[in-house]
Amino acid sequence: MKITAIEIFKSIETIRQKSPVIHNITNYVAMNNTANALLALGASPVMAHAQEEVEEMVNIASALVINIGTLSKPWIYSMFKALSQARKKGIPIILDPVGAGATTYRTQTARELIENEPPTIIRGNASEIMALSDDNSKTKGVDSAAASDAAITTAQKLSDTHNCVVCVSGQTDYIIQGKQTIKVKNGHSLMTKVTGLGCTASALCGAFAAVEKSPFAATVKAMTVMGIAGEMAAAVSSGPGSLQTHFLDCLYRLSEADISQRLKIED
Amino acid sequence: MKITAIEIFKSIETIRQKSPVIHNITNYVAMNNTANALLALGASPVMAHAQEEVEEMVNIASALVINIGTLSKPWIYSMFKALSQARKKGIPIILDPVGAGATTYRTQTARELIENEPPTIIRGNASEIMALSDDNSKTKGVDSAAASDAAITTAQKLSDTHNCVVCVSGQTDYIIQGKQTIKVKNGHSLMTKVTGLGCTASALCGAFAAVEKSPFAATVKAMTVMGIAGEMAAAVSSGPGSLQTHFLDCLYRLSEADISQRLKIED
Amino acid sequence: MKITAIEIFKSIETIRQKSPVIHNITNYVAMNNTANALLALGASPVMAHAQEEVEEMVNIASALVINIGTLSKPWIYSMFKALSQARKKGIPIILDPVGAGATTYRTQTARELIENEPPTIIRGNASEIMALSDDNSKTKGVDSAAASDAAITTAQKLSDTHNCVVCVSGQTDYIIQGKQTIKVKNGHSLMTKVTGLGCTASALCGAFAAVEKSPFAATVKAMTVMGIAGEMAAAVSSGPGSLQTHFLDCLYRLSEADISQRLKIED
Repeated sequence: MKITAIEIFKSIETIRQKSPVIHNITNYVAMNNTANALLALGASPVMAHAQEEVEEMVNIASALVINIGTLSKPWIYSMFKALSQARKKGIPIILDPVGAGATTYRTQTARELIENEPPTIIRGNASEIMALSDDNSKTKGVDSAAASDAAITTAQKLSDTHNCVVCVSGQTDYIIQGKQTIKVKNGHSLMTKVTGLGCTASALCGAFAAVEKSPFAATVKAMTVMGIAGEMAAAVSSGPGSLQTHFLDCLYRLSEADISQRLKIED
Repeated sequence: MKITAIEIFKSIETIRQKSPVIHNITNYVAMNNTANALLALGASPVMAHAQEEVEEMVNIASALVINIGTLSKPWIYSMFKALSQARKKGIPIILDPVGAGATTYRTQTARELIENEPPTIIRGNASEIMALSDDNSKTKGVDSAAASDAAITTAQKLSDTHNCVVCVSGQTDYIIQGKQTIKVKNGHSLMTKVTGLGCTASALCGAFAAVEKSPFAATVKAMTVMGIAGEMAAAVSSGPGSLQTHFLDCLYRLSEADISQRLKIED
Repeated sequence: MKITAIEIFKSIETIRQKSPVIHNITNYVAMNNTANALLALGASPVMAHAQEEVEEMVNIASALVINIGTLSKPWIYSMFKALSQARKKGIPIILDPVGAGATTYRTQTARELIENEPPTIIRGNASEIMALSDDNSKTKGVDSAAASDAAITTAQKLSDTHNCVVCVSGQTDYIIQGKQTIKVKNGHSLMTKVTGLGCTASALCGAFAAVEKSPFAATVKAMTVMGIAGEMAAAVSSGPGSLQTHFLDCLYRLSEADISQRLKIED
């Protein structure tokens, strides 16, 4: 599969036009960033976690993004409810297993969510992805680690078992579906100093999956757009504070030229 | 009623001087923005949602702002408790029915809150306001829609029934109380690309209502100040990220001249 | 005890190198700021509040920061669990009694937390500190008040009773342990117009305490670094919005020269 700057920008234009509703059940830390990034991209974020309303909210949404960054029992209950409704409705489901591997609670919850209703896309860093099917790894907090061979192997297994796209993000992002792998080499190290950019990447996967038939292509597009907006922002930033601000501005103004000049994809 | 730049600025000066405590029970997404906007304006935000403390917090507050953006059962319980105490104490109550119309849970909760203790001011976009007394409308997420004639009719009915001010915000903000209507035409389209600015507007209504006898005038003042600070911020911003930053700076530095040069009010 | 710019910067270098995991159970308003400030400093923030996972999260952390800014019953339960585990493990515990004195619930909770497991460091403004052992004070919201003689007396008593460091923050920060007192005169008044900077200070105390044997020195270092980054940010800011952005950038880029040029410590 070959993904070009033209196609990536075409999806952005569709998002800006259709403004798809993206339902997020996400963590407290990243909620604001996530909503702002979705708005900057052109989508319509909604945040709702009450068991009384998640199903109805799923019904007006074009994608569901589940993020386990700050878990608790009632939220997990709502995640299951929302997932099940999203599956029924047939909209893409994105899972971000934040901190899987750091505690049993997170690891177990992520695994149960996946086994219950396999997501369309799973996006996490190497240690989080490894935690989803391997007890031998230990996450150090929720920081991104270099994508190791082990994580890629796990990702392939996960993709096969659950028939989903798995993205192992890091300095290079690996987007994997079955035998297909695409590497995205966009991005900037300063991005690791801003909280919630991983969560934002997962939310953007939701926006692209909402307007794009292939979840694999949607994930590649989301990760390149994240990386390119991040690079452009880093180029004019003097630290993580300004990066955050510029990132949203760049995402909002992203043009086809920006993408074609910077796109770094490898098969 | 005629509201001038001089009067608006006088209220800002009073807020800066008295620094009224504004108690917010608001959503997770907008909490940080809301607190920062209140601080930038000169008020003292407090956030407290536990049923064990909301009444006591209301007792030290000069206004109560209720926002249903991320509901759950224990929060609703606390909202009712806080409202009832605010009514007893006689401080202004502002209700922001975020997402009313999007789910039954939100629509019902907003209506029950209003029927239980009519707020002093209700502020929402057209579809949210319509959802408060009409079953025929459907909100698309929580985005602002153009204020339609239907929303204005609903607002007038709400105002009459509950003897409160209703603000239908959008490209033009309609502030309505009984037969009185004022249109505020300040603001900038880029503001719709930043999450939580509607919630911020409601919080500012609280700050102005805390220092101003007429809730109608307070709402007009809050909406003009939002719009003017937003316009000034947009003029120096290159996207929604920088808008957010500049918005707080402009709010903090707002002068009488800024207001008189930009004020766009119509009866 | 004499603390120099060289020693402060040495601790920063250690934080940047070791990237200690700081476990925060903090309020919804300041979570994002806190996480970003810890990242900018070089630490690894984690946020987890579920009773099912807090002990395990403490086990991978080098410090625990408890902040009572937006309390509720399940969070309090988790705070006690986490505290007890942190004590067992022997990592530094930082308590930020946000809003103690404003409501009985906060005052009681802060006192019970302290009596149950005395923290290593307590950091609050004058009224919050006074509320920890004196029923005669009343906090006006959560704003910082000038550190009064009364607060310092309370702080000394608290320090003696619980064998901990107490920091009374304000225009001048008083760091107190037994008979020792150091005054930090860094900082800028614009910082009081940004929400969550007090909470951020407490989180930075955690980061310094994670790499520094003396909790007293760690607190002094954290408060000087906060103040210096704040001053540097204020010098290039036009309001509280840009201050927030620049603060993170300055924290990220802080050099030994920045510290030695600006350090204002008094015994």
